[in-house]
Amino acid sequence: MKEIIILGSTGSIGTQALDIVDENPEKFKVVGLSCKNRIEELKKQINKYMPKYVCVERQEDALELKKEFSTVEFFVGSLGLFEMASEKCDLLLNALMGISGLAPTYNAINNGTDIALANKETMVTGGQLITDLAKEKNVNILPVDSEHSAIFQCLMGNKKSSVKRLLITASGGPFRNMNLNELENVTLAQALKHPNWSMGQKITIDSATMMNKGLEVIEAKWLFDMEADKIDVLVHPESIVHSMVEYEDTSIIAQLGFPDMRIPIGLALNYPNRLNYSGESLDFIKVGSNLHFEKPKLDVFKPLGLAYDALKAGGNKSVVLNGANEVLVSAFLNGNIRFIDIQNFLIKVMDMDFDNKINTLEEILALDSEVRAKTIEVINRGEKC
Amino acid sequence: MKEIIILGSTGSIGTQALDIVDENPEKFKVVGLSCKNRIEELKKQINKYMPKYVCVERQEDALELKKEFSTVEFFVGSLGLFEMASEKCDLLLNALMGISGLAPTYNAINNGTDIALANKETMVTGGQLITDLAKEKNVNILPVDSEHSAIFQCLMGNKKSSVKRLLITASGGPFRNMNLNELENVTLAQALKHPNWSMGQKITIDSATMMNKGLEVIEAKWLFDMEADKIDVLVHPESIVHSMVEYEDTSIIAQLGFPDMRIPIGLALNYPNRLNYSGESLDFIKVGSNLHFEKPKLDVFKPLGLAYDALKAGGNKSVVLNGANEVLVSAFLNGNIRFIDIQNFLIKVMDMDFDNKINTLEEILALDSEVRAKTIEVINRGEKC
Repeated sequence: MKEIIILGSTGSIGTQALDIVDENPEKFKVVGLSCKNRIEELKKQINKYMPKYVCVERQEDALELKKEFSTVEFFVGSLGLFEMASEKCDLLLNALMGISGLAPTYNAINNGTDIALANKETMVTGGQLITDLAKEKNVNILPVDSEHSAIFQCLMGNKKSSVKRLLITASGGPFRNMNLNELENVTLAQALKHPNWSMGQKITIDSATMMNKGLEVIEAKWLFDMEADKIDVLVHPESIVHSMVEYEDTSIIAQLGFPDMRIPIGLALNYPNRLNYSGESLDFIKVGSNLHFEKPKLDVFKPLGLAYDALKAGGNKSVVLNGANEVLVSAFLNGNIRFIDIQNFLIKVMDMDFDNKINTLEEILALDSEVRAKTIEVINRGEKC
Repeated sequence: MKEIIILGSTGSIGTQALDIVDENPEKFKVVGLSCKNRIEELKKQINKYMPKYVCVERQEDALELKKEFSTVEFFVGSLGLFEMASEKCDLLLNALMGISGLAPTYNAINNGTDIALANKETMVTGGQLITDLAKEKNVNILPVDSEHSAIFQCLMGNKKSSVKRLLITASGGPFRNMNLNELENVTLAQALKHPNWSMGQKITIDSATMMNKGLEVIEAKWLFDMEADKIDVLVHPESIVHSMVEYEDTSIIAQLGFPDMRIPIGLALNYPNRLNYSGESLDFIKVGSNLHFEKPKLDVFKPLGLAYDALKAGGNKSVVLNGANEVLVSAFLNGNIRFIDIQNFLIKVMDMDFDNKINTLEEILALDSEVRAKTIEVINRGEKC
């Protein structure tokens, strides 16, 4: 019986993870849950799983819940997440959004807990810090992103030294066939409509700008200890091939399947074993009969190129990229900027100078705050590159 | 330094294996060679590799060669192959054609030598005998067929118990889009023109009838200990995806690459390590941009269905299938029967009763002889089903 804490339990990944727990009650016991503000959904989860620990965003929600669930230990806010992550369990599933996932991941690893990582921003902002700590504490970081889970599976049974390159596939998002001019007029509703995957809002917008793929390239660098020039992105509109690894003998191993997050979540939860999944097999005649691959359009979807630049530049650039992007996506979701402004403003912020000290958790979080403030200034000035 | 014996060294697989040896002189030493009748080519090979052992088909060739290469120990004919296979080496690459490969494989395993197996008829005719012996002698059988090498790679790092099914891909051969009537009129030249692979004549004809895929299904059963209902065939005209494995979590692992036999040969020779191969990487934009999958047409290419029937029936049926097919392909290559007659006559022979004792090498070879004689009778009578 594996005891797990789920951070972000009411989100898309969190609820699918709980589906897996429901299907495998003999394998998993939920000991911790967290959510931001979907309190009614959380209440149902607490009633069902009776966890020891629960974290919510606001103090008043915690006090209210405590009346109903007196045996549960409650935590509050980002400090609460940080603390709850250090509670003893076998696996922490981090399905938080944005850099808020960094500190809890850090603290869980510091306490020797294996991580199922759905929060790519952890690696984008704290790659060096996190991987160094995981090595020191002998902790597994198991990828939950479908692409990184695919690469993880394609690496199984092979030597890292024989890898030639990683091939991360990208659906290309809803605007794959557009040019730069057409991107000027896309609406929020269009951007939120991903062709293949049902996900949270932030990652859906990141998919539409292809920033998501950029963040994945950076995450792959850290998860698999691979330099930028050994990580390629390939547009694959059907999202059937989830990613690939090429070896030194030019043999390519790929992982394929339905675009169904329960497969990578299940593997991360049950690692080193696969889960017997009740879902249907991929039908190559009906669904997978025609698979396409294209080059990503770096001249249209600039965030992907910016991510490569950030990765190659090293230092603080990935933290800057991520912080600015989080603010810009949020501004777009709130109707304050246009879709195309995400990348225009991002270029602007990436050109600015920031403090280059990112050796500790505190330094990374301080830099992130600075970047956010500057990005808001850029938005308010309405400057474009 | 791995000492290897290559049976069938002047054939397609044999010469490509020697290319690999040439590229990796620090890794491999050729200690044995064999060929049937390409004596001039063999002479060049003996001069170049200075093997300890050489086997040829005819006594007169051996005597002639002995004058020129006095230090080499010569073997003759099928008994010679059988004996040479028991000489000490680290790996025996069996690239013989047809059931002639069975006895040498048996004897090499019996002497504790690992096998790189390009001769699928070994497993089709002697699957139980060979796998039992390999287990007893703790010998590795490394697949060289591109499909089985693909499956072998897709199984790496995974538990056999978590496999749901094997997906063997098939190009569909040169007549993929034909119906039964159209098969009536195909010529030898057309049948020898495989769309993707350059191979020996027998396997090229087997690809055109899809018997090759049937033999591969039977080989897969024995190599990977998998029942017939867990082995699917999928037509994939581009021959880029070489085969796949689906796991119990519905995750599918595939192996992809150019249709280049040096990749699977290199892996089998250098196992457990991959070889650093100087060839180009597969370009998904130019070559692999559009991958198709279709159902195999069992009503047109009947040998594939016959192979499944033989596998499910068990007993002597696979030996009968293989023996009859070898005779029929040979008759077609010699212009004695039409292309379509291969499958028509095959059905006829498969309906006949034969001795069901195939527990020993001798019994299998005796049954094979009987089947061959009966098949020749069927051809001579010109009967069709």
